[in-house]
Amino acid sequence: MRQIVIVGSIAYDEIETPHGRSGKILGGAATYSSFAAAYFDVQVKIISVVGGDFKPDYIELFKQRNIDITGLEIKKDEKTFYWHGKYLENMNKRQSLITDLNVLEKFDPVVPESYKEPDILLLANLSPIVQLSVIRQLKRRPKLIVLDTMDFWIMTKLEELMEVFKNIDVLTINDQEAFLLSGQNTLRAAASKILEMGPQYVIIKKGEHGALLFTKEKIFFAPALPLYQVFDPTGAGDTFAGGLCGYLATTDNYSFENLKNGVIAGSVLASFTVEDFGTNKLQNIKTNEIISRIGEFIELVKFNFPKTNKIFNKKIQQ
Amino acid sequence: MRQIVIVGSIAYDEIETPHGRSGKILGGAATYSSFAAAYFDVQVKIISVVGGDFKPDYIELFKQRNIDITGLEIKKDEKTFYWHGKYLENMNKRQSLITDLNVLEKFDPVVPESYKEPDILLLANLSPIVQLSVIRQLKRRPKLIVLDTMDFWIMTKLEELMEVFKNIDVLTINDQEAFLLSGQNTLRAAASKILEMGPQYVIIKKGEHGALLFTKEKIFFAPALPLYQVFDPTGAGDTFAGGLCGYLATTDNYSFENLKNGVIAGSVLASFTVEDFGTNKLQNIKTNEIISRIGEFIELVKFNFPKTNKIFNKKIQQ
Repeated sequence: MRQIVIVGSIAYDEIETPHGRSGKILGGAATYSSFAAAYFDVQVKIISVVGGDFKPDYIELFKQRNIDITGLEIKKDEKTFYWHGKYLENMNKRQSLITDLNVLEKFDPVVPESYKEPDILLLANLSPIVQLSVIRQLKRRPKLIVLDTMDFWIMTKLEELMEVFKNIDVLTINDQEAFLLSGQNTLRAAASKILEMGPQYVIIKKGEHGALLFTKEKIFFAPALPLYQVFDPTGAGDTFAGGLCGYLATTDNYSFENLKNGVIAGSVLASFTVEDFGTNKLQNIKTNEIISRIGEFIELVKFNFPKTNKIFNKKIQQ
Repeated sequence: MRQIVIVGSIAYDEIETPHGRSGKILGGAATYSSFAAAYFDVQVKIISVVGGDFKPDYIELFKQRNIDITGLEIKKDEKTFYWHGKYLENMNKRQSLITDLNVLEKFDPVVPESYKEPDILLLANLSPIVQLSVIRQLKRRPKLIVLDTMDFWIMTKLEELMEVFKNIDVLTINDQEAFLLSGQNTLRAAASKILEMGPQYVIIKKGEHGALLFTKEKIFFAPALPLYQVFDPTGAGDTFAGGLCGYLATTDNYSFENLKNGVIAGSVLASFTVEDFGTNKLQNIKTNEIISRIGEFIELVKFNFPKTNKIFNKKIQQ
């Protein structure tokens, strides 16, 4: 069975949306990413850290999914990373009300021996310094290194982030962050710039507008499923990255054509995450639901344009 | 040859973008829509009005495309509709600096006899009162009536607009206007509400994020081509509506499956319009360029997801 190592945060989140408040619930990039990846036929291993206040019930959730937690450090005398955020009316903007790094502040991961030869390394959102440390502790280069990052690291740790970029194959980033990172104002120009920074693939996540996969020569546009209601967008990007890696490790094919399918797999899983608070829905998807939704994505963009010139005005220059 | 009647504005536009200023150039919804539709093998007929200040050279542009201008009224003693607008940094927001309705203010169109039995009627952006008047002057109901409208009419002439809605088959509207019209905050919920107002098809235009075609049962997601540079978005929506109608009239097939192709055709032509100021690019597209770009749209969303359950974790409930 192929292996994915995921390094990222595990958190207590408290989320406010126009639909209500979540209370203090399980969150964090490594949580969403590993839960999503674990829907595939792969061995998922996480590297993260929590405090002594972290609920044993939550640890059970990882174990139930056969997620390897050898690399999960529990610092008894410290507190788990805590984030309290609020989404505004249309769910496109969010405010961070409280961000208590706590145990994450001095996180210096030690990669377990059994983790050192993964097929895929997913660097979920975390400090580039931690990400570099993990890359350097591996015994051999994974087949694929995927990086997810955010505006905070672009603004505060750009030099270290650029160093990470030299080591990765795939960057997933949202549209606003792509503009910030590249200084460009169209996604295509932004992707071109970012592809010069190191990664072979750049995936720009546009939330409800889908995602774009870029190489230097090619582009793929993955739709998002238009939903009646977006309940809570938290973790959608992390779910996407986890689903992408889970699919790719299982199929063990890193071509552009298969990356496209990975983007669809990630988008499909993310479309479930946003249907409920936190990981509520992501914890309880059935295989048949995933397969059915993949079918919806296929239908959503399918068209059959007639192959004929006869539809055009004959007087126009060829 | 099938016939499309287009009623809409013809304007002098003056456009400012971060790329520069256009000067006073040809614009207006009927202009973009008719130029786009005329790329197809159809007879396009326009209903509009201009002032005595309207350049004969511009009238030539319509004639060159074999666009019937019997329904173009020239009011010698009045001035052509004038719009001066400015796009902000990211091209997503625009400000109207000057809007002089001039000759449009009292526009009361008389539909020529030769226009009264079109295959498609395109009600391009204009007052709903004018749109209703045109519908009522026709001898028989067209196979398809397409309406494009904007926030201004939703806010100022909602009652008359609702009356137009009862007579149309297809509404094209942008995402912000769909939210405004429906009072909903997801596009899917907005489309559901709008479909109850009359039209059988609703097309929500999302600019650089593509377009969504909704019926009560089905959805189609058409991508937008990611461009290196959006030079001037003016007229993209009008071009879209014109391309849609041009394609549909030529193929004479108003099924959901063919509407999808119409949405692609409209998106393809709109992707040219935004490449230069005003109608500069839209005036000079070659058939081969259109065919080539249709190919790019097909490639952009094509993927081939494996039909197997073997990729999923066997421990998850089916």
